[in-house]
Amino acid sequence: MRKGQQTRRDIIRKAAPIFNQKGFEGAALSDLMEATGLEKGGIYRHFKSKEQLAAEAFDYAWETAVDCRLEGTAEIANTVDRLQQVVRNFRERRNGLVAGGCPLLNTAIDTDDGNPRLRARARCALDAWLLLLRDILEEGKARGEVRPEADVWQISTLIVSGLEGSLMLSRLQKDSDALDVVVQHLESYLETQVRARKPASEEQRA
Amino acid sequence: MRKGQQTRRDIIRKAAPIFNQKGFEGAALSDLMEATGLEKGGIYRHFKSKEQLAAEAFDYAWETAVDCRLEGTAEIANTVDRLQQVVRNFRERRNGLVAGGCPLLNTAIDTDDGNPRLRARARCALDAWLLLLRDILEEGKARGEVRPEADVWQISTLIVSGLEGSLMLSRLQKDSDALDVVVQHLESYLETQVRARKPASEEQRA
Repeated sequence: MRKGQQTRRDIIRKAAPIFNQKGFEGAALSDLMEATGLEKGGIYRHFKSKEQLAAEAFDYAWETAVDCRLEGTAEIANTVDRLQQVVRNFRERRNGLVAGGCPLLNTAIDTDDGNPRLRARARCALDAWLLLLRDILEEGKARGEVRPEADVWQISTLIVSGLEGSLMLSRLQKDSDALDVVVQHLESYLETQVRARKPASEEQRA
Repeated sequence: MRKGQQTRRDIIRKAAPIFNQKGFEGAALSDLMEATGLEKGGIYRHFKSKEQLAAEAFDYAWETAVDCRLEGTAEIANTVDRLQQVVRNFRERRNGLVAGGCPLLNTAIDTDDGNPRLRARARCALDAWLLLLRDILEEGKARGEVRPEADVWQISTLIVSGLEGSLMLSRLQKDSDALDVVVQHLESYLETQVRARKPASEEQRA
């Protein structure tokens, strides 16, 4: 039983880059067999279908991405500083990702006219990613670090749209220029439009 | 000969939504036969390979997208107003697109770890799209409508990243909320950070 679970996890981990790079349709059984070193029966003893394996591979790739993006942020006390680090991590900590780029972007595009089960996973991942940013913003409001009038829904949408869009450009252009531009824009947006203004008295002391 | 060219164009037009929705690997011969009403031989009499058909289908879908995004903009004299209309068109004129969303976003993600010929087409499309925006900005600078210090490369990158990223969100969420947020942000960014400031004397007269 324990060995079976270990094999199952290994298959997911090895299948994840195949699905993330080639998409659901593009990932051939031969690719999965080569990556895992198993025969068809050895793979599908552990999964009901290619769809189930793809869904679990997506979850694994997505958890890895979220871990990279949150790395070193929990210990940042100020919520706006923390958001700025999340934005920087999106650009800087891409080496830890499963090969093939952002699993959310890939799976969203791959499945938006297709596979509804995989699409539902991507939708959940997007909602959770937006909610995570919104929670930091709400915490910031409660602590007086984020402007009370800031629209947390709009800000989280701007951050995710900008980052995911610029990642598409950067991957196509094979350099990080677009990511650099958008990360810088978002950092400055958070600084000038989201961070609570200091009271005038403090401003003078600073 | 003339009839052959007409058939060729028909095949491209009918294959374009298949490739745009299903991707290169996902587009099966059976899908292409059903869409065109032709047998395999009838399709491949006109194209050397699936790759060639996909490349021409991409070009067709992309031209359609660019036409939608530029609709009604040529007659707008002020360059910043024109850019704002291009941004609004991205959200509002999506009905004219080949089914399946933005062909650039789809093809970039579909091919960034795959098909190099199709990837090269997507790369050309992106470069042309960025250049088109940059040309409007440069024209704006020459006419004193855009701030002289504006970085046209950065601005065009911000626009394309934001629009393409928010389209991913909107398609996954099946509503236009994310597009609305980003279009509004970009319009306001163009207004407050890109449009040349009026001289103080004019500001007072206004």
